[in-house]
Amino acid sequence: MADNRVFIFDTTLRDGEQVPGCKLNTSEKIELALQLEHLGVDIIEAGFPISSPGDFESVSKIAGIIKNATVCGLSRAVQKDIEVAGEALKGAQRPRIHTGIGTSDYHIKGKFNSRREDILQRAIQCVKWARNFTDDVEFYAEDAGRTDNDYLAQVIEAVIAAGATTVNIPDTTGYCLPHQYGEKIAYLINNVKNIDKAVISCHCHNDLGLATANSISGVINGARQIECTINGLGERAGNTALEEVVMILKQHKGLGLYTNVNSKMLNPISRLVSETMRMPVQPNKAIVGANAFSHSSGIHQDGFLKDAITYEIINPEEVGAEQSKIVLTARSGRSALAYRLQKLGFQFNRNDIDVLYGMFLKIADAKKEVVEEDLMEMAKQYQLEATVA
Amino acid sequence: MADNRVFIFDTTLRDGEQVPGCKLNTSEKIELALQLEHLGVDIIEAGFPISSPGDFESVSKIAGIIKNATVCGLSRAVQKDIEVAGEALKGAQRPRIHTGIGTSDYHIKGKFNSRREDILQRAIQCVKWARNFTDDVEFYAEDAGRTDNDYLAQVIEAVIAAGATTVNIPDTTGYCLPHQYGEKIAYLINNVKNIDKAVISCHCHNDLGLATANSISGVINGARQIECTINGLGERAGNTALEEVVMILKQHKGLGLYTNVNSKMLNPISRLVSETMRMPVQPNKAIVGANAFSHSSGIHQDGFLKDAITYEIINPEEVGAEQSKIVLTARSGRSALAYRLQKLGFQFNRNDIDVLYGMFLKIADAKKEVVEEDLMEMAKQYQLEATVA
Repeated sequence: MADNRVFIFDTTLRDGEQVPGCKLNTSEKIELALQLEHLGVDIIEAGFPISSPGDFESVSKIAGIIKNATVCGLSRAVQKDIEVAGEALKGAQRPRIHTGIGTSDYHIKGKFNSRREDILQRAIQCVKWARNFTDDVEFYAEDAGRTDNDYLAQVIEAVIAAGATTVNIPDTTGYCLPHQYGEKIAYLINNVKNIDKAVISCHCHNDLGLATANSISGVINGARQIECTINGLGERAGNTALEEVVMILKQHKGLGLYTNVNSKMLNPISRLVSETMRMPVQPNKAIVGANAFSHSSGIHQDGFLKDAITYEIINPEEVGAEQSKIVLTARSGRSALAYRLQKLGFQFNRNDIDVLYGMFLKIADAKKEVVEEDLMEMAKQYQLEATVA
Repeated sequence: MADNRVFIFDTTLRDGEQVPGCKLNTSEKIELALQLEHLGVDIIEAGFPISSPGDFESVSKIAGIIKNATVCGLSRAVQKDIEVAGEALKGAQRPRIHTGIGTSDYHIKGKFNSRREDILQRAIQCVKWARNFTDDVEFYAEDAGRTDNDYLAQVIEAVIAAGATTVNIPDTTGYCLPHQYGEKIAYLINNVKNIDKAVISCHCHNDLGLATANSISGVINGARQIECTINGLGERAGNTALEEVVMILKQHKGLGLYTNVNSKMLNPISRLVSETMRMPVQPNKAIVGANAFSHSSGIHQDGFLKDAITYEIINPEEVGAEQSKIVLTARSGRSALAYRLQKLGFQFNRNDIDVLYGMFLKIADAKKEVVEEDLMEMAKQYQLEATVA
């Protein structure tokens, strides 16, 4: 039924930008939008136009500059929001309005003090308003992760009938387990009569560390869009990390799914976003962390040096990262030491290496990392002693 | 069949400590081991005794100090490694030797240049050696994630027969998808005759961002131990994050599983590990990131202030984090502004807030975050103008 292409909807400039300390000015937003288009994302969520005059201006300027990607603006299920989003997107080649409302009972009661029937009517109404501005309307059922499936299916069927072309099923609080999120998508595929008229989108949050797994479970079950951000930035513990879902689909060819993202740009754009938004990426971050391709234990280094595939499933070049690193610490073994000494131009035999390894461990137990200078000094001292003896 | 308790096997001091730059001295290792025991982990993997004299000393000292947790030492399937591990653990109340060998064809051919039959014999042999030192022997089938299930089942059955009491199924390269990893565990439960004589352990790596989801899939399918580290530290993109799996099992009571970890210590120990190992935690890290409980968009703040459960599934107190934060940026709305002004002692009505919100947005569009001083100044200016008029 569904095509095998998964659309990548980047919301770094919206869900990412609303994070404390991440706010961007218009020229920074434009620069990032151009890079995201270059990366090959399908949809750029550029902002939330009604939220402030500055954000309106950013969305409007991005709409005027981006040629290939769809440019999207967020709105609540409020007429004024949608009108302002429509206005901001006027200059876009491919404008999309993203609108919606909370559908879980937590939101219906706790936030709106309302009833399911009334929320259903507001959902239909907001899609109709948005269709006055563009044919590309995405509806979000906020907190869908905790929304009763039966009611959710009813809302989704109604908004598709009202003209929504993408239906977003957010796990707003990051609560779902992967099999639960996947079952929710499967439920919609099996119970919404007109579901073939829209693309199902996954929008997952990382509060329990499951955003990536939930999004993948979503597309395995029939969704065809993933909403994500560079470095997994976003509200609280963040959103699905773009680099992770893209590489999972690329590595797991058996799933038969693909995206149009150019993976070689993943590390460069990660650094650009981290610097522009002043949000550090931890060294042990998948795909884009500084250590993602560093091997330091002796067992791993030995295996890696014999055959990289023993410990590495992705060639760092494929994601625009520096070459794999063989870092020398007290957990390194003889083969890593021999490899690094050879790279420095020394030729030692097995017996030499045995002696040198003892010298190396003494240095390594006292230091965090044994660097080139330490190796040079050690090797020269060993040669000198060997000559004297 | 299996009990509902999931054992937490912490490897911060072994798989975490082998990361470039993370090496600890003996007194740092002891301090962290005591905190891990206090946290309530069941097994502390204290190091890899044969790797260096310094690490031998650390394991030996930790073995002498820890009273309640099991203390574990790593070894390869090499007699000398196992003897040294046994020696280092001599003083432990509950010593465990962790030994094993690569079982995927990548490892058998690429690393050992060997054959399946020979590796099977080495696996049996190493468990027998280890049993000379302790009754608590854990066997790891390295790269089990890419090992043929049939052969893996054969190895696991043989090592249990040889005396292994825990069998570790590592996804060494972080390759598996959650359903694949879960199916592997289920395959072992269904195809290893003596599987009820051992605990199955999940050891997952985060190269594709799936370590947490894979571990949870493992315990859903019958594993009862998770190997993890504080902050997800570890080789390359790291290991499963302890704080994430603990909170998933705590939040998802429907799974019927539990751990003995005291969740209120999760944030304090995260900071301690980050400082001692000098490994920053990114702000958007689940459970322990600085922003994990920050709400900044207007929609979220409004909902959160009406009823926290609309946007928050974990009370920050439960994980020892500071109170949830309402941060003011250009994406904040009137309700967050009113809330923060009220906290500063101002009483404004709806009309006041409308005017103040316009003033606020001008400041917010020019700044990353609007802080208390900005609010005080703005509110006083407004009161002054109101008095004059």
